[in-house]
Amino acid sequence: MDSLAPQDRLTAQFAFLNEADRLKSVLRATTLCDGSRPENSGEHSWHLALYAMVLADQAPEGVQIDRVIRMLLIHDLVEIDTGDVPIHSANGQAHASADTMAAEQRAADRIFGLLPADQAASFRALWDEFEAAETPDAVFAKSLDRVQPVMANLSSGGGTWVTYNVTFDQLVARVGVKIARGAPRIWDWVSARARPWFGA
Amino acid sequence: MDSLAPQDRLTAQFAFLNEADRLKSVLRATTLCDGSRPENSGEHSWHLALYAMVLADQAPEGVQIDRVIRMLLIHDLVEIDTGDVPIHSANGQAHASADTMAAEQRAADRIFGLLPADQAASFRALWDEFEAAETPDAVFAKSLDRVQPVMANLSSGGGTWVTYNVTFDQLVARVGVKIARGAPRIWDWVSARARPWFGA
Repeated sequence: MDSLAPQDRLTAQFAFLNEADRLKSVLRATTLCDGSRPENSGEHSWHLALYAMVLADQAPEGVQIDRVIRMLLIHDLVEIDTGDVPIHSANGQAHASADTMAAEQRAADRIFGLLPADQAASFRALWDEFEAAETPDAVFAKSLDRVQPVMANLSSGGGTWVTYNVTFDQLVARVGVKIARGAPRIWDWVSARARPWFGA
Repeated sequence: MDSLAPQDRLTAQFAFLNEADRLKSVLRATTLCDGSRPENSGEHSWHLALYAMVLADQAPEGVQIDRVIRMLLIHDLVEIDTGDVPIHSANGQAHASADTMAAEQRAADRIFGLLPADQAASFRALWDEFEAAETPDAVFAKSLDRVQPVMANLSSGGGTWVTYNVTFDQLVARVGVKIARGAPRIWDWVSARARPWFGA
């Protein structure tokens, strides 16, 4: 807890929750499974948290699924300021550029900074952990973040693979390696379905 | 675990996750905070799970927030079959009708039934618990589900209160009582802001 009076604490919490609403207006390159429209980063975050709930038994031993769920609920909030960078786009290949990372840090400062100080620190630490992708929880969370667009593309007839002219080798390099790192059995399942789509 | 082979288990899990994607196309009466468009039930579920994360310290002692988060992630999935029933609409006032409840039960049978048997049972039990609104976790989850549309209406200039000609007394009866039951301090904070909007 911090030093805010209880009602002021709620004021800060609701300022954060209202600001978070804007994530529903950040559009991704990926569409819904039926291809009807682009997915937004709010509903994407929900779907990923559900992925974690359902695919919990695919996680390596030691992964704490409830922490993974929390990470995934907040992992994209910085996009309110920075927008989404599609992984298969030219910018996506510069995904970890110093400029992008600096902009995301500023966004994290601003957005998590709306919370009461104790929560600002704990939410930020969880987001930093996700970004660093070193702990078992973060590695598994990152794997799920890579799987979900593959499923959307398979369902919608190609999606961003068509948009960005992606080859199977590129999919493996940009996506498959990260899925396999955190969830090898899931990559086996998914790649067995993606490979035929690419005729590979 | 059930008796499915690991790859067949994944096939069932992804069938459920792909079906869940359709919740992003179920529209609610409530709009985004900026009033730009109706909110869908997928992004609504994300926002509520974030509400639980942020407002955890407002929960009564004994509430397990990670269970609340899981409940909120799945609480609206039945709407894929039944659609959303706005609480302030004429149908909303018949919210707990036998017909509605029977339709939701059929939807739960179908949708959770896509999962491997062990998960079908555990997800269904968690959804049944939410619906029954008797345990501390479910009561708190239901409170959050009532708070979030109030915040959207306050932000967007009235929202569904305008659409359905709602009075402050109706808000208290339909929404306030449930918020106060699970989260009295939150209702104090929210009602102090809603009351002036109604001129009450």
